[in-house]
Amino acid sequence: MCPQDIKIMQRILTGNDQIAAEVRASLAGKGIACINLMSSPGSGKTTLLQKTATKLNKGMFVIEGDIYTTLDSERLQSAGIGVYQINTGPFGGDCHLEAAWIRSALNEIDLAGIDFLFIENIGNLVCPAEFDIGAHKNIVVLSVTEGEDKPLKYPLAFRNAQLCLISKVDLLPYLDLNLNELKQNIKRINPQLMMIEISSIIEKGLDDWINFIMACRQNAPEG
Amino acid sequence: MCPQDIKIMQRILTGNDQIAAEVRASLAGKGIACINLMSSPGSGKTTLLQKTATKLNKGMFVIEGDIYTTLDSERLQSAGIGVYQINTGPFGGDCHLEAAWIRSALNEIDLAGIDFLFIENIGNLVCPAEFDIGAHKNIVVLSVTEGEDKPLKYPLAFRNAQLCLISKVDLLPYLDLNLNELKQNIKRINPQLMMIEISSIIEKGLDDWINFIMACRQNAPEG
Repeated sequence: MCPQDIKIMQRILTGNDQIAAEVRASLAGKGIACINLMSSPGSGKTTLLQKTATKLNKGMFVIEGDIYTTLDSERLQSAGIGVYQINTGPFGGDCHLEAAWIRSALNEIDLAGIDFLFIENIGNLVCPAEFDIGAHKNIVVLSVTEGEDKPLKYPLAFRNAQLCLISKVDLLPYLDLNLNELKQNIKRINPQLMMIEISSIIEKGLDDWINFIMACRQNAPEG
Repeated sequence: MCPQDIKIMQRILTGNDQIAAEVRASLAGKGIACINLMSSPGSGKTTLLQKTATKLNKGMFVIEGDIYTTLDSERLQSAGIGVYQINTGPFGGDCHLEAAWIRSALNEIDLAGIDFLFIENIGNLVCPAEFDIGAHKNIVVLSVTEGEDKPLKYPLAFRNAQLCLISKVDLLPYLDLNLNELKQNIKRINPQLMMIEISSIIEKGLDDWINFIMACRQNAPEG
């Protein structure tokens, strides 16, 4: 090989990343902020979205990711929230969403009047974090019932997020959890990660959450 | 194609399943019962194993599966439990264990005096259930904090298990959870699935859990 053949390896957007970039740009062009919620099963994402709808005086829509069932969609719909269900079960049971699913969903959704598109990812603290789905902001939700060590054990979700919602803080009095240690562990993985302690039950942290959401749209959505 | 060419499709053990069958047979041959624990992150598996060691008057060893960190292994080791750590992070960050990892681990572990080999799978209610790792019994652990609907949303882990540990029941008084509905959902997915309500904190269900473990060895391990 001749010296002039030496090449510098560059990151090339292919496949999923390319589609994610297109989704992100398309939504930004419509003035819609897209927010991806990732967590373990049962961290309180759906309940939080129901509560968000009561507080957020803006058009919101939810793409709901699940392997099976439309249970979460039904809960959201009964709360008057527009929702589109992606079930990966019939297509191999994927444990995460990918950008192509979102692009396909968006082809079928009427986004008129929508300011915020939330994507409730499949309940899995591992795999969803590996896939850019075209959101402007990635949120990791961690329930205080999961323990202090989870940011260290599942770092990618925390590394790739712009906000960590520390959820179910209403249960803190009944848990042997060191909240400061949990926060320090989050900071060890991602020193820039914003954190909000939140509980839909006792309505703690909801104003800060709404302010975060509103800022997503006031600022130009990030690529 | 001639009629005599009609073939009946049979399940052929290949790759992971073949290795799993070998692991299972090899352990059974040594009189060791192998028990695989699967759950979401933070369901209380490690704490339960620590508690199990104090109650089980038999030789036990733990293969600890994590993407990153040796935190759980350190907790088990400090409780006097023999442990071997598998970290998938340096090898692509796999979100589950496979039989080949277990076979490799067993080549390095001294199993003399061991009656029970526990495998604490990676905290993920989705992917680990897709892989036979050579255990004689598969246990799904579901924390009551995760909600009634999880068996319906993540059915494979419940379908492939012989026991469901409903964990953290000490928190029931503080949750808006319908325990009967949760149990009915488990039964809808797997009518044969045994259930034990358990809490390491208030020591509920531990005797039933120990009896289940002991029965794994008294009965010939199943294939």
